[in-house]
Amino acid sequence: MDTALRDLVSTSPLCHLTTLNPDGSPQVTVVWVGVDGDELVTAHLPHHQKVRNLERDPRAVLSFLAPPEPGAFLQPYAVVRARATVVPSDGAWDLLDRLTKGYLGPGVTFPAPRQPGYIVRYAVEKVGGIGPWAS
Amino acid sequence: MDTALRDLVSTSPLCHLTTLNPDGSPQVTVVWVGVDGDELVTAHLPHHQKVRNLERDPRAVLSFLAPPEPGAFLQPYAVVRARATVVPSDGAWDLLDRLTKGYLGPGVTFPAPRQPGYIVRYAVEKVGGIGPWAS
Repeated sequence: MDTALRDLVSTSPLCHLTTLNPDGSPQVTVVWVGVDGDELVTAHLPHHQKVRNLERDPRAVLSFLAPPEPGAFLQPYAVVRARATVVPSDGAWDLLDRLTKGYLGPGVTFPAPRQPGYIVRYAVEKVGGIGPWAS
Repeated sequence: MDTALRDLVSTSPLCHLTTLNPDGSPQVTVVWVGVDGDELVTAHLPHHQKVRNLERDPRAVLSFLAPPEPGAFLQPYAVVRARATVVPSDGAWDLLDRLTKGYLGPGVTFPAPRQPGYIVRYAVEKVGGIGPWAS
C-alpha cells in the first residue's frame, strides 16, 4: 500500500463504506478503518447487512476525508476501490479495541463485551480522490 | 424534508455521493450539497461519470458527517438514500456559486467561468445514520 494512503488511514478518518445490496442498490455506513499489512481492515461484531453484502459481492468503496489543508481550495480526500474478503474471527473485538485508541483516545477500551465477530480485509484496487494517494 | 436534515445540510458538509457504474460497481466522489425546496441538489459543470451514472440509474446515496458532538461516543452522520433526476441547466454555475458561500466563505465566487452544466435533484427516500435525522 502507498505510504501516503497508509499515513492518511493512521489519522483515524471516519470512513464511508459502500457495499451493494442484493437488489444492486448501494448501501453506505460510516465505519472505523485500519491498516493490516498491505490491506485495509474493518471489524464488526454483528453480522451486519454490510458484512452480508460483502460476502455476496466483494466490490467495496471506502471513502474518507483527510485533515483540511490550510489554504487549499478543496479538502483532500481518498476514495479507495477494493475487493473485500470477510473472515469470521475471534479477533474482531481486538481489532476494534486497537482502532478505539485512534478514534476515541489512547486510554479507551472498546465499550462492548469481548465476543467473536467478523474482520473484513480490503485488497486495494485503485485509489482516487484529491491528494498524494490518488493514482 | 425533515428539519434536522435541512439544518445539517446548511452546515455545508462535504458529501460522499455514491452512484452505480454501468457494470453495477459503486462509484464515490466527494461533492457539495444544498437544499432546494424539498430536495437535495448538487451541481456539475462537466458531464462527469457520476452524472452519466445517475442518468442511467437514479439510485444514489449521499452520506456526510455532522459536526462532532462534544462528549458523544460516535460522531453523528447522515446517510440519505435518494432517487436522482439530472437536469441540464444554465443555472448550474449559479448553484455552485451559492454553495461556494457555505463551503469556501461568504465573499467567495465560484472559481470557474460561468457556463451551462447539470443540476441533480435528489428526492429523499430514506435517511439513516446517527442523529435526529435518522428515520
